Amino acid sequence: MSGSWLDEIAWTEDGLVPVIAQDHLSGRILMFAWMNRESLALTEQEGFAVYWSRSRQRLWRKGEESGHRQKVLDIQLDCDADVILIKIEQEGGIACHTGRESCFYRSLKHGEWQTVDPILKDPKTIYK
Amino acid sequence: MSGSWLDEIAWTEDGLVPVIAQDHLSGRILMFAWMNRESLALTEQEGFAVYWSRSRQRLWRKGEESGHRQKVLDIQLDCDADVILIKIEQEGGIACHTGRESCFYRSLKHGEWQTVDPILKDPKTIYK
Repeated sequence: MSGSWLDEIAWTEDGLVPVIAQDHLSGRILMFAWMNRESLALTEQEGFAVYWSRSRQRLWRKGEESGHRQKVLDIQLDCDADVILIKIEQEGGIACHTGRESCFYRSLKHGEWQTVDPILKDPKTIYK
Repeated sequence: MSGSWLDEIAWTEDGLVPVIAQDHLSGRILMFAWMNRESLALTEQEGFAVYWSRSRQRLWRKGEESGHRQKVLDIQLDCDADVILIKIEQEGGIACHTGRESCFYRSLKHGEWQTVDPILKDPKTIYK
């Protein structure tokens, strides 16, 4: 995991950095997750998003179960060097485990979270 | 701070939620910050982004010094209810304290973070 670019990142105390995944064409925000140093290095090397699963405490190659990998076209860093933005091509057009294009499918309307996006594929058929 | 929609958010142990601010027209990600329950309630009530400054430990009405307020047009929630996405209209066209449109102005090229966006306004003239 060489690369001084990794040293420039202001990792959290837990050694993580928040990552926003954005569709490179539509500009839609597809998901938000975390990476550690190893997963970010792998993301750069492999060209596909590799996150750090905080719940499972292990590397999480996005799409390893669903097949919905995220091809990474650009990696960007913010002014404080503590947030990463990746521009991706979402394989299968589905980023969310609910079977939707994006994890952000609820919008606040009249004081309630309303679902504004359809399920494109039944999760039962995604995760077998 | 009533509103059951606030109760549906999975706040961190510190009572915060990460917030992504996206330009409602261009789709560009302008910044990333945090909100607590009070700041999110105020954001909804006032129609302009109010963050929680972790460094200063106080409410931070975006633009209070710079004048670069963020009019909030939509508030979205992700599948795990632990990340907020706001669609905004950025007053002044500058979200970053460096005087750039977006805080994400560095891109990884050939193993280095390269600045790919211009400074639109000298920060010295923004923060007087």
